Amino acid sequence: MKNSKKPAVVLLSGGLDSATCMAIAREQGFLLYAISFRYGQRHRVELEKATLVAQSFQAEKHVILDIDLGKLGGSALTDSSIDVPKHESVDEIGSEIPLTYVPARNTVFLSYALAWAEVLGSNDIFVGVNALDYSGYPDCRPEYIDAFEVMANLATKRSVEGERLRIHAPLIHWSKEEIIRKGLELGVDYSLTSSCYDPLPSGLGCGHCDSCLLRERGFRQNSMLDPARAPR
Amino acid sequence: MKNSKKPAVVLLSGGLDSATCMAIAREQGFLLYAISFRYGQRHRVELEKATLVAQSFQAEKHVILDIDLGKLGGSALTDSSIDVPKHESVDEIGSEIPLTYVPARNTVFLSYALAWAEVLGSNDIFVGVNALDYSGYPDCRPEYIDAFEVMANLATKRSVEGERLRIHAPLIHWSKEEIIRKGLELGVDYSLTSSCYDPLPSGLGCGHCDSCLLRERGFRQNSMLDPARAPR
Repeated sequence: MKNSKKPAVVLLSGGLDSATCMAIAREQGFLLYAISFRYGQRHRVELEKATLVAQSFQAEKHVILDIDLGKLGGSALTDSSIDVPKHESVDEIGSEIPLTYVPARNTVFLSYALAWAEVLGSNDIFVGVNALDYSGYPDCRPEYIDAFEVMANLATKRSVEGERLRIHAPLIHWSKEEIIRKGLELGVDYSLTSSCYDPLPSGLGCGHCDSCLLRERGFRQNSMLDPARAPR
Repeated sequence: MKNSKKPAVVLLSGGLDSATCMAIAREQGFLLYAISFRYGQRHRVELEKATLVAQSFQAEKHVILDIDLGKLGGSALTDSSIDVPKHESVDEIGSEIPLTYVPARNTVFLSYALAWAEVLGSNDIFVGVNALDYSGYPDCRPEYIDAFEVMANLATKRSVEGERLRIHAPLIHWSKEEIIRKGLELGVDYSLTSSCYDPLPSGLGCGHCDSCLLRERGFRQNSMLDPARAPR
């Protein structure tokens, strides 16, 4: 039975969105090959979370790649000289591209996923990008994902051989509320996830970065508390 | 004077093609930001060569990034359990995609170049891909480069701000003979370069891999010996 399933590469950050995305890939019957990145991010606790999430979904394999994105600079997430912006409420989050944007991050991540898909003989990559809540990250927009898919279908040996690769971004048009609702339906254990850009030493969320505030609102809209949030 | 020049990111492997490509970027008046990768390749001598080439062109900066491509497997260039194919002459090189193809390599390399261009405020990436001699590498074809450029122009903060990024692939339609002729005109010192997939302990070319054979023919067609080739 298991061998009739097809492999899919799933980008797994350890956050809420990618855990939900992985649950969707599993629901669709794929064998799960999870890939995470140690890229100089402040929030390295997310990699421990990614490992737990991959285990909870019985992924076939989980690789964590060390990449040097921080060496190129330019983001509050990888450059300790730039502070992560903090707010009191979700209403204070601006509409411009935030300082936490990491230049070309999704392009680099998807490129590695593409390389692995080629080696595994997979035609399916899942990525938990979301255009709605992540105000202003250019590489979370549908037109970007579509263009990456077109490029990917010219980039590889498999594409030359007539195979067609698909980038699945099932969360792209959903609100955080909808993402959490779907994840709860599929049995995602959100206590294993971490979305915070600047976590406390305990690994719990700070509660004030854009990511914490959006996440908290999503759980509130589902009439529950964030299971990974520090008590206040 | 120098400050009026624009920065360009140049992918630099230490081989003949990327050295020529860098000479062309310099000729076009760009400030040179060279980027190379330690990706588990057998032919690491090319990184020493890349450093010498960057110095010879007085690049503003040369970064060498460590990337984990070998961890994903699938190529004779990064997997020591797969032998690099050797031939007696250039006529024996097949037309199928060779074992030395590294899955999605140019996509990964160009993604990092895109990230750096974003940080540097550059609209220009130079890559020495070549569709003619490199029989069958899918990510050396013009349609692939065009698709990457379209994707890149949706991927970054600069693109949202209305800047237009260009992927320059000046060698893409040239023969090795033409590449070398152009490089000689522009003063490239080819003794600083290495193209071999499986170099001798001395760092000189093996003379029998596809890359050595194509290179040797290119120099012969320019009525000279390869200055980086071991004497026979």
